[in-house]
Amino acid sequence: MSPRILFSASEAKWHEYEGHLRHSLSAAGITAELSPDLGPPEEVDYVVYAPDSDVQDFTPFTRLKAVLSLWAGVEDVVGNTTLRVPLTRMVDSGLTEGMVEYATGHVLRHHLNIDHALAHQSGNWVRHVPPLARHRHVTVLGLGVLGAACARALAGLGFIVAGWSRTPRDVEGVTCLSGPEGLEQALARAEILVLLLPLTPGTDSLLNAAHLDQLPPGAVVINPGRGPLIDDEALLAALDRGDLGHATLDVFRTEPLPPEHPFWAHPKVTVTPHIASETRAETASEVIVENIRRCEAGLPLLHLVDRDLGY
Amino acid sequence: MSPRILFSASEAKWHEYEGHLRHSLSAAGITAELSPDLGPPEEVDYVVYAPDSDVQDFTPFTRLKAVLSLWAGVEDVVGNTTLRVPLTRMVDSGLTEGMVEYATGHVLRHHLNIDHALAHQSGNWVRHVPPLARHRHVTVLGLGVLGAACARALAGLGFIVAGWSRTPRDVEGVTCLSGPEGLEQALARAEILVLLLPLTPGTDSLLNAAHLDQLPPGAVVINPGRGPLIDDEALLAALDRGDLGHATLDVFRTEPLPPEHPFWAHPKVTVTPHIASETRAETASEVIVENIRRCEAGLPLLHLVDRDLGY
Repeated sequence: MSPRILFSASEAKWHEYEGHLRHSLSAAGITAELSPDLGPPEEVDYVVYAPDSDVQDFTPFTRLKAVLSLWAGVEDVVGNTTLRVPLTRMVDSGLTEGMVEYATGHVLRHHLNIDHALAHQSGNWVRHVPPLARHRHVTVLGLGVLGAACARALAGLGFIVAGWSRTPRDVEGVTCLSGPEGLEQALARAEILVLLLPLTPGTDSLLNAAHLDQLPPGAVVINPGRGPLIDDEALLAALDRGDLGHATLDVFRTEPLPPEHPFWAHPKVTVTPHIASETRAETASEVIVENIRRCEAGLPLLHLVDRDLGY
Repeated sequence: MSPRILFSASEAKWHEYEGHLRHSLSAAGITAELSPDLGPPEEVDYVVYAPDSDVQDFTPFTRLKAVLSLWAGVEDVVGNTTLRVPLTRMVDSGLTEGMVEYATGHVLRHHLNIDHALAHQSGNWVRHVPPLARHRHVTVLGLGVLGAACARALAGLGFIVAGWSRTPRDVEGVTCLSGPEGLEQALARAEILVLLLPLTPGTDSLLNAAHLDQLPPGAVVINPGRGPLIDDEALLAALDRGDLGHATLDVFRTEPLPPEHPFWAHPKVTVTPHIASETRAETASEVIVENIRRCEAGLPLLHLVDRDLGY
């Protein structure tokens, strides 16, 4: 019998996911019924789930095999005592891939000085051959899944990459630094600095005036991580003094970034509207369907939540 | 005794190379005398050589061990019958690295639509998340040293890469096509097309009106290869019709590109002034010094010219 899959999230999400889920199911050779409205809960095999959805009481779902969260964070559902079947969280490879593409694209943009080329199309043939990546120092702050993937990709392109994290890590081809002293070294060598730290009390405004001062003259900051990692006033001051060369920012303390915010009009700031990465319906659908395939085949689920640890 | 090295090229080249050669010699632990004016030819051990230099008769260089060309093309010296010692040509890894960086940087620029971001800094928060590289088709025409290196790097970043060459080639992770039918397939799938073909009678104006017509709507052309690969009029017509999305051009039929050439002012053309890649004094110096080291140690030379084949 073909599994019956309830899609329990907002209508907007249904429109975003329906085609991709059906495509992934078909690609996996699974014939299933998939709908946001499947009728009697006792006939539902799987719930594809956003923790803010209508379903909060799982008691009536008597033949449920698993709940597959569309969200990475499951703190709103993990304590639900009516949920007695396996719960999985979303780990989307598309999010990492998109982040790596954004980070490498903007590092190469600054490395090659593409902005200069775009601004000089007036017929004046002046050659400035950029240095090679093997002579360019890039530092990635944060060596979690995203930071490590970006550091690895940049090293693969030939850049001299340092990575920094609070506690020691090991990433192949990357000079890994940690702790307060390591941060000083990581900043001092960063011709291009990429911020991919998680936001914690310890990283809030990490890039403050003192740390900006430790960057080499003309350094470029790229922030696709979290807005509050940067002290905005200190960043603008460093740009205006000419100490900092450029800032390319994708995330902000307030989003959308208000039209009157000085970042928008600043000639040395590039604003991108939080597009560096996001969970993709396409790749997330593949993760959901892979778990349905595994469950149907009696195989262990991916990204299974440990209900005691809470993630 | 420390080897005596004559630098026989233009004064401009001497200024470009001196520091790098001395640095490479020192890094290799070689104590040498290096000068564009070493005195008696019979006391010279090596000639670092540009084939257009003053030295055309090697007869007086009685203790010469090798001639190390700064040029990749040695057609002007290979037939010199007064040259009876090993001759090496320049194969500069820096040239390949620079080309890979230019190609990946501009492919990512178009993939991520960075131009759009740079042109929209007016305070309007409109999110267009780009597709993933794994859903973007890039075609590289030409699978020689440069083309293969670029295709490999693009595949490493996740792009779906096809490569085309006149005769069949094999590059890992790249769909390799060849011949006239392969060209049609390579063009038909190219959302982003990179030209890295050698210039031959068969590739002159290869990207003509008929071949431009085979590209998918909105395709982007990047040419860091050779200027005459493109029929300029046909390219401009395709851009003006809106069939082609953009052209980023580094090489031209006439260089410097004249100020009045329509490429400069065209809103869908980016001109870069032949900066994608060049032989780098820094990396070329390493190649020269490595060969001196090998010769002094009695090891076989790199990039030795076969005088019969002529390269």
